[in-house]
Order: sequence, then C-alpha cells, then structure tokens
Amino acid sequence: MKNWIDELKRVLTPKQVLTELADRHSYSFDASFGEYLPEAVVQVKNKYEVASVLKAANEFHFPVYPRGKGTCLSGGPLPVHGGAVLDLSQWPEQIDVRPEDLTVVVSPSALPANINQAAEEYGLMYAPDPSSAHVATIGGNLAENSGGPRGLKYGVTKDFVLGLEIVTPEGEITRTGGQTIKNVTGFDLTKLIVGSEGTLAVITEATLKLLPKPPAVQTLMVSFKDIRSAGQAVSKTLTSGILPSKMEFMDQACIRAVENFQPSGLPIDAEAILIIELDGHPDAIAAELEVVEKIMMELGASETIVPGNPEEAARIWHARKQVSPAIAQIKPTKVSEDATVPRSKIPEMMERLQAIKEKYKVEIVVFGHAGDGNLHPNILCDKRDQEEMARVESAVEEIFLAAIKLGGTLSGEHGIGTMKAPFMEVELGKVGLDMMKRMKESWDPNNILNPGKIFTEQGQRLVLRNE
Amino acid sequence: MKNWIDELKRVLTPKQVLTELADRHSYSFDASFGEYLPEAVVQVKNKYEVASVLKAANEFHFPVYPRGKGTCLSGGPLPVHGGAVLDLSQWPEQIDVRPEDLTVVVSPSALPANINQAAEEYGLMYAPDPSSAHVATIGGNLAENSGGPRGLKYGVTKDFVLGLEIVTPEGEITRTGGQTIKNVTGFDLTKLIVGSEGTLAVITEATLKLLPKPPAVQTLMVSFKDIRSAGQAVSKTLTSGILPSKMEFMDQACIRAVENFQPSGLPIDAEAILIIELDGHPDAIAAELEVVEKIMMELGASETIVPGNPEEAARIWHARKQVSPAIAQIKPTKVSEDATVPRSKIPEMMERLQAIKEKYKVEIVVFGHAGDGNLHPNILCDKRDQEEMARVESAVEEIFLAAIKLGGTLSGEHGIGTMKAPFMEVELGKVGLDMMKRMKESWDPNNILNPGKIFTEQGQRLVLRNE
Repeated sequence: MKNWIDELKRVLTPKQVLTELADRHSYSFDASFGEYLPEAVVQVKNKYEVASVLKAANEFHFPVYPRGKGTCLSGGPLPVHGGAVLDLSQWPEQIDVRPEDLTVVVSPSALPANINQAAEEYGLMYAPDPSSAHVATIGGNLAENSGGPRGLKYGVTKDFVLGLEIVTPEGEITRTGGQTIKNVTGFDLTKLIVGSEGTLAVITEATLKLLPKPPAVQTLMVSFKDIRSAGQAVSKTLTSGILPSKMEFMDQACIRAVENFQPSGLPIDAEAILIIELDGHPDAIAAELEVVEKIMMELGASETIVPGNPEEAARIWHARKQVSPAIAQIKPTKVSEDATVPRSKIPEMMERLQAIKEKYKVEIVVFGHAGDGNLHPNILCDKRDQEEMARVESAVEEIFLAAIKLGGTLSGEHGIGTMKAPFMEVELGKVGLDMMKRMKESWDPNNILNPGKIFTEQGQRLVLRNE
Repeated sequence: MKNWIDELKRVLTPKQVLTELADRHSYSFDASFGEYLPEAVVQVKNKYEVASVLKAANEFHFPVYPRGKGTCLSGGPLPVHGGAVLDLSQWPEQIDVRPEDLTVVVSPSALPANINQAAEEYGLMYAPDPSSAHVATIGGNLAENSGGPRGLKYGVTKDFVLGLEIVTPEGEITRTGGQTIKNVTGFDLTKLIVGSEGTLAVITEATLKLLPKPPAVQTLMVSFKDIRSAGQAVSKTLTSGILPSKMEFMDQACIRAVENFQPSGLPIDAEAILIIELDGHPDAIAAELEVVEKIMMELGASETIVPGNPEEAARIWHARKQVSPAIAQIKPTKVSEDATVPRSKIPEMMERLQAIKEKYKVEIVVFGHAGDGNLHPNILCDKRDQEEMARVESAVEEIFLAAIKLGGTLSGEHGIGTMKAPFMEVELGKVGLDMMKRMKESWDPNNILNPGKIFTEQGQRLVLRNE
C-alpha cells in the first residue's frame, strides 16, 4: 500500500511536507497542556491544497489537525493521534477591507491586530480583541471563537463573522453565509463552524463585519480592598444603564506578578483592581464616567485613577496584557481556565475560587473579563511534582463543577479541546452531547478532522500527571 | 394498527387534539402563500407534552409542524404533508426578567413586545423588534431568526439568544447554551437551532440577552425626489462613523398606500423616504443628528422632518408599521420578499427591482431595512389571474437571482420555508446544501419535524398558480 506521506508530497510539493524530527517537535505542543508528536507537518497556502490534503486523509485514513500559530489554550491543534498537522500560518496574509459594505475579507493566516489596523484606516474597527491579537491568527480565533476584553460590549469573534469559505472534512470546497449583514438562508453553518475547534471544517477565508470606530475612549482603573466588592461593583455598573466596552479584573497575585515582570505602576497593595473602558461620544463618556466613579466609591473603592491622556491609558492596558506572561514566570506550569458564570454570580464564583485554593493548597491567581462573568483562574504549579499535580487535577475539576453549579459553563472563550472534554457530559447531558456527536459523524464519517477534541474518547478523564 | 390521532389523545388529553374541519382549516395557512389541511392540531402547554407528541410521531410516522401565531411570511408552519400542527400559542406566557444577569427567560408563547415591556421595567431592553412584535410569538421569532428595524445597530433575534431548552425531533428534552454571555462549550447548537425554521427542534424555553435601554432616541424623516439618492444616502451615512439604530426605506407606492389606508402625514409626493432613528446619550445624538442631516442635504434630500416630541416620532414609526397591512389592501394577493444585498449594493438592487417591475409588468412596491441591505419588494397581484401569476413567478425568480448576483442572499429575515426552497442550490451550491441535509438527517432520521421546508423535494419549483 502507498505511504500517505508520499501521497501528500505528490499532491503538494515535497518541501511543503515536513517530516524531520525537529520540525515535528515544533508542532507537538500549543499553549495548553501536553505534547504529542505528529508524523508529518503540512504547510498549505491555498484552499485547493487544503482540499487535496483532506481528500488524501480520507483515502489513507490519517488524522489532520488544523493549526494557526499554536497559541491555543485548550489543545485545539494538538496531534493527539499522530497523523498530520495542517499548518495554515504560512498562507499569504490577505486583508481586503470593503468600507462601503462595512466588511473585511481575510485569509486564515491574517492576524486580528492587523485586521483591526487595516479597518482603522477607514475609520472602522474590527471589535474582537483577544490578548493574543498580535500573535494568533484569525483562523485560530475563528476555530475557537475567541473573546477578549471588548467582548463585554461588542461580543466575540462569532458575532462578527458574516460568511466563510471552508473545506469540508471530506475535502469539498464550499461557502457558508455571505457578505450581507442579515442572512437566514438555510441552517447557520457559519456560526456552527466558528467555535467548532477545527472539527467540522477547515476555514480558508472569512468575511467579517466591521463597525464605525467609536470617536472616543476613556479608561479608568479602580483599586479595591477586597475581592467581593470588586465583583459587586461589576454587577452594579452593568445594571446602572451603562455598558462599558471593557471591564477587566485582576487580583493581587496578578498585580504583583505584573509589577515583578515589568513594572507598570499598578497598585500592589490593592486586593483587586478593575480596569474599565468606556467608549462612544466624548460627551456621553464624560457623563458615564461620573456615574461609574460614583458606583465604585459607593462600593468602597480605595483609589480611582483616570488617565489623563491616551499614553497613560495604553500603559494600563499594556499591563493587563502582561498578566499571562508575568504569571508564567512564577512557577514552571500554568493551568489556565476560563469557566464562566452568569454576571450576577461573579462575587460568588470569586468566593468559591478562594475556597478551592485553600482546600487543595494550590496557587490560584485570578484575572479576566469580569463584565462577562468570564474569569481566568490560573493554577500555578510544577508539572514534575506528581503530588502537587494530583491536587491541581482535583482543583480544576472543582472549578468546572462550581461554574456549572452556578449556572455557568466550562469554557467562555478558550474552548474544550482535550482537557475539558471529560466534563462535557456534566454540562450538556447525554442527549446534548449525542446531538453534537451526530453532527460530527454526519460531516466527518471517517473521523479525519481533528479527532480527540471536544468529545471524550473511551475512558478519557482529566490527567495532568505523567502516569 | 393503532390510529395515531387516538394515540395523541391518549398521551395528551382528548380536548388538546383538534380534528374538526373548521379547526383544521384555521391552521391550514400562514401569512405566506398556499393552503394545506392538517389531519389534526395538537395544542401543547409544556415540554413533556411536546416530547410525547414527537415520540408518538416517530412511532407512527406522522409529520409534526410547530406553529406560534401563524404570522410567518415564508410558510414555516404550513402542514404541507398532512399530519399534525403543533400549536404552541396556548402555552402560558412566562417572562422572567433577571436584571442582575441582564437576561430574561421566556416561554415559546411569549410575545416579543411583552418581553421588551417587561425588560423596560428594569431600564433594560430586548432589542429585536420585528414589525409583528405585538402579534407573533418569540417561538416563531426564534424559529425564523426574525429581524426588524433595530437590527441595523443591535442585530437580529439570534444575537440575543444565550440558551434554549428544546425537544429533539425524536422527543428528547435537552438544553443548549446556557445563561452566560460567553460560552464555547462544544458546538453552538443554540445558534444552529435559531433560524432552522422548526426543522431541527421544538423550542420550549429560551434565555435571552437584554441590554441597557438607551437614554434617548431621536427620529428623522427624510424625503427624496429619486430612489437612487435615498440608497446613496444610506451608504454615505453608514460610512460616516455613525451607526443609527434604525434606517428604514419606503418608496412612493408604500407612502401612498399608507396614506390611503390610515392618513399619517407622510409626504405623498416624495419618490422615497428614509426614516432614521439615532439612539444613545442625548448629547451624542444631537451631534450625530447634525451630521446625518448634512449628509441627507448633500445627497439632494427635498425635505427633512425632525419630530419635536416622542408622540410625533411614534406617529412616524406607526406609519412605517402600517405598510404591510396598507399594501395588502391594494390587490388581493401580496407576495412579500426579503432578498438582501451587501450594503454598498442597495442603490443597484433598487435599480434592478425597477427594471424587473417594467420587464414583467408587475406591481412591485418596496420598503424595508435599507441600512441592512434588507429590502422588502412586495409584488401586488391577484392569485386568481393565472396569466398575471405566471409573470409574478418570473419576477420573483429574477429578484432572487439579482440578489444572489449582487453578492446577496435569498432571505434576510423571513426564512426559506416552502417558496424559496427551489432556489437554495443556486445560492449554496450542491455541497453547501448537502452539508445542511446531513445535519437534518442525523437529527431527524424519520423526517418527522417540519418536513417540506428549506430543502426542496423531488422536482419542486416555485409555483404561485393553481395548476
């Protein structure tokens, strides 16, 4: 029988198919947990090549794992069953703004920050702003339905996708949705594929919605002496009639980690801070700022800083972006979660995290998109310490169950991938999970495209230890 | 073999199963085209009853057509193959606002206008505002993914659905999504089911997102001497950095129809009018109003009316809502379309509609959500006139093809239903349509739930004549 790697070299060119051990190692991990060595890496640059790879995969029965820049926090591109990683990051970047339609057409390799920059030339903006916007690809953002701080007011990646060009798991090229703002022609495959973690299709082009860029923005940083008050301040603001564009939370551990990593002038004695951004018309912002400051004071804020110019504001937001790299310095291993709860449950979730931290004696730092109920508890640990990792496993499980119990969800924006798959049935129930599996099976009968993600495999459970 | 109607009377109560001819006639039509007599009508009031009906349907192999108030413009609830209409309009109305979460939980029978009214008590709003908001049910809105004028700024029904409770085609009760703003746990069944026209599930409860109610609104009515300028004024406004909450278009025929039906003070000599609404902070609105008025003048507006109080503004919006009933008075039959194009193509689509009108000598009036590229060309005709209806069929087909050719879609907000099904493959291609069918088959192997919608049946084509 013909070797599938030779077949890939035949349908593409040999230099697009990497099989050296060093190359395969580079594609064996992402920003989550675990390492899996692929048998080959395929670098594709157009839709026809993607189609050829998938047709070969169905003929030779090898798995294919789409990958952008590998910044995924849930294991999306991990080649858990060997086979081929499909690297889309080498695709030429295409960003075609259509200002009259308020849309932009992009290649899967485009960086979200570049998309937004291109839009700004026309006074427009691409609203989703994941912290990784300068390093991750839009293809990965689409696969995982990435969020970001601005999600509070504007929504997440999915809310900005009008249409896709895709290659189906069986290697057929087709389009979903279109270029119009409204479209109810048949099932909404666009919104189904966005966030399906590369299990239903490979995205080869996307048409995204742009918005007029708000004429002004105003940042506000507020310190609190206790975490619960910060949580209550979030709820109070959101029911005051004001919808800030961002409402971010950092606990003391995050604040100190950032200050150690890159001093940014954050208040290191605060138990927690909120970083808030208002956007819109300058007069509206001025009025809203007053209301928000009043709410913060009523809830016992110890300090409020209103930056006087865009540079000062940028410094604060830069500090917020440093949280992830900063906390990664504290211990060798970082287990990053994004369990999400209804907005009113934010203070309660914060308390539960505190209790879990004490119960399992693990180091949990918390930051995130508090306005969305989307916190990022990060457990800092050392994966070589088997005893510690056992406690981490239990803590992670309890975080998931706490979020579900509060009416929340396993994942707000990072995706299920490998680590959260064992908990899917707790949230969705047998029927809900079965309906998802039916879809996957009907689209990908040979289970070629990104197997081992979202759905658990026989007996799979959360394991953070080497056994 | 046991009779399925007897089985329904057994699993429900006999009085919930209507079989009298007069009752069946009442459920044989909707607000679109065609009449189909069901064999029975089943009035359900809770999810367990829905589950029982669907389980019986799978056992006895009879089709089930979910129905709200029957206002559908695309044939969604029509019992095209006999069987049972599942009437959800008798379900007790439940509207449970959760102000701290900025959500509301509703029963399928709730009216969107009532949902918005309940939200307003907390200073919140339910943004989607289809013209039928006072008469249609949210269940129907969810099934069809209804739009409305406010869709321009806020999006359509789907954009406000966080979670659903559903009964699957096989009669299993389950939940999708949840109560959180962000959720990427598994496939997005919520957004797939919303807009699937009752073919994938029966919705028995929904959790909807609410927004803070804007502190102020300002209406503006602008007259134009030619249609093209009105179209250009829409494009120009949307690229000026301002996003109005509504931007509605009416041509002269609509204006005159409304004035004949219910005099409302519309300018009957205008070739077209735009009715615009700005919302937000009062100072921001005042500044935006100036910009919009300037744009309108530059594009040759002949008159601009800025109502001085909410009552005057309400009169203008009431006139806009009268278009549909008013034009229905002109001729016995109204074929209502909602083909949608990219925003920049609005002026071109208006010209094409004019050409189609002349070519087929049919009476087409046009109104709609111009800011979304979502026009409603309505063909006024008499279905008893076979020769005229032949011309109408050709005109409808040409409208669909024109929209697709301009990069648009068959339906922006009314759905595919029965009439547009024959054109699905033109827009989606064989593969796109096949991927949708695979889903339907995997969820509904016995093709029980709302068969004959979205997907064409063997040899089906657009027929508006009795043959």
